[in-house]
Amino acid sequence: MVQEKNERRSNISAQAPRPATALRHQGLREELIATAERVIETQGLEHLRARDLAVQAGCSVGAIYNVFTDLDWLILEVNANTLRAIGAKMAAAGGAAPLDCLLSLANAYLDYAVDHRRRWDALFNHRMPLDAVAPDWFIEVQNQAFSYIEAPLAQLRPDLPVPALGLLGRGIFAAVHGMVALGLDQRVGSYGVPALRAQIATVVRAITAGLPEVDLT
Amino acid sequence: MVQEKNERRSNISAQAPRPATALRHQGLREELIATAERVIETQGLEHLRARDLAVQAGCSVGAIYNVFTDLDWLILEVNANTLRAIGAKMAAAGGAAPLDCLLSLANAYLDYAVDHRRRWDALFNHRMPLDAVAPDWFIEVQNQAFSYIEAPLAQLRPDLPVPALGLLGRGIFAAVHGMVALGLDQRVGSYGVPALRAQIATVVRAITAGLPEVDLT
Repeated sequence: MVQEKNERRSNISAQAPRPATALRHQGLREELIATAERVIETQGLEHLRARDLAVQAGCSVGAIYNVFTDLDWLILEVNANTLRAIGAKMAAAGGAAPLDCLLSLANAYLDYAVDHRRRWDALFNHRMPLDAVAPDWFIEVQNQAFSYIEAPLAQLRPDLPVPALGLLGRGIFAAVHGMVALGLDQRVGSYGVPALRAQIATVVRAITAGLPEVDLT
Repeated sequence: MVQEKNERRSNISAQAPRPATALRHQGLREELIATAERVIETQGLEHLRARDLAVQAGCSVGAIYNVFTDLDWLILEVNANTLRAIGAKMAAAGGAAPLDCLLSLANAYLDYAVDHRRRWDALFNHRMPLDAVAPDWFIEVQNQAFSYIEAPLAQLRPDLPVPALGLLGRGIFAAVHGMVALGLDQRVGSYGVPALRAQIATVVRAITAGLPEVDLT
């Protein structure tokens, strides 16, 4: 699905390339994403520049813009891969009881942010132009990452219809995200990962204990 | 306190200015903060440039760097004012019962973010250099904003010692912040303020209902 949309996007800029050209195009595309990932992981998003990328990927600056409309779209591809990696960690987490499952998901998210700080940072600090809307394929990747939280919530609140469950799941994901984001932020006065982990556990425990009591009619 | 530290910072760059110079210095300082606030509020942090600031404040670019080591310190002053404004909104919120109080605080925070989007954005998207640590006076302003949440939490958990209450308060502040941040973010697929408000209310209700049950020993 993602592949298909990317092809379509490529076709717009490259005017329906012939098979050999399309293959080269696709190869460069993958090379650019891998190079950008490396730069973001090791140096951070703010060090991503077209000129350096071109040198490292062995192409001209113009060739980059043949493949991606602008760097924002390349960053979106890297961020989608980051979301897939977070999703994979969350998929591997879990537990039978809702509380164990939610704690394990929150810890998986915290661990990813700690282990891949710059990459995780790029996910939330990449600013698209204000009028830009994330493309559908990207929203789908995001929703996939959010979705792991819904199974334990459905156990806690079997009465909730799917849309309400989705909104609640996103809310709890965002709540954990907020604690991780402010907790790791130097500017706010970071207090270390163990205290942060305990803080997140307390809030997740409270949510889990209280959720069955909340009137959601 | 803030004043005192700023004076000290100014003195370092201006080498103990004489009274008249110090007064001019202070006047320019306030003018620059007000101008930067205007730019951030109307155009956003990414449009803040020393050259434009100098034109608008009627000084030279060099004069800016006589007052602030670099733009990061000017932005920090604007962000401190933003935190004070958020704090004032939260101070005016409240309610007798812990739940009413926590809901009212969360709504005050959401309302500020919606009404002053670019300013609120600057607070969380201003990146200091990775090795920079926020100065003590800024941390104090932040802690003041976090503190409003502690009174209702102390009602819910009178057993908690002050440090644990502080960590919990920060966690719940961060959780609400995370929901506001992801909920208003176009890239994540924003779903509108009323749904966001309902989402926040559900999570805050769950936390309030569950918190007395959580074993925190």
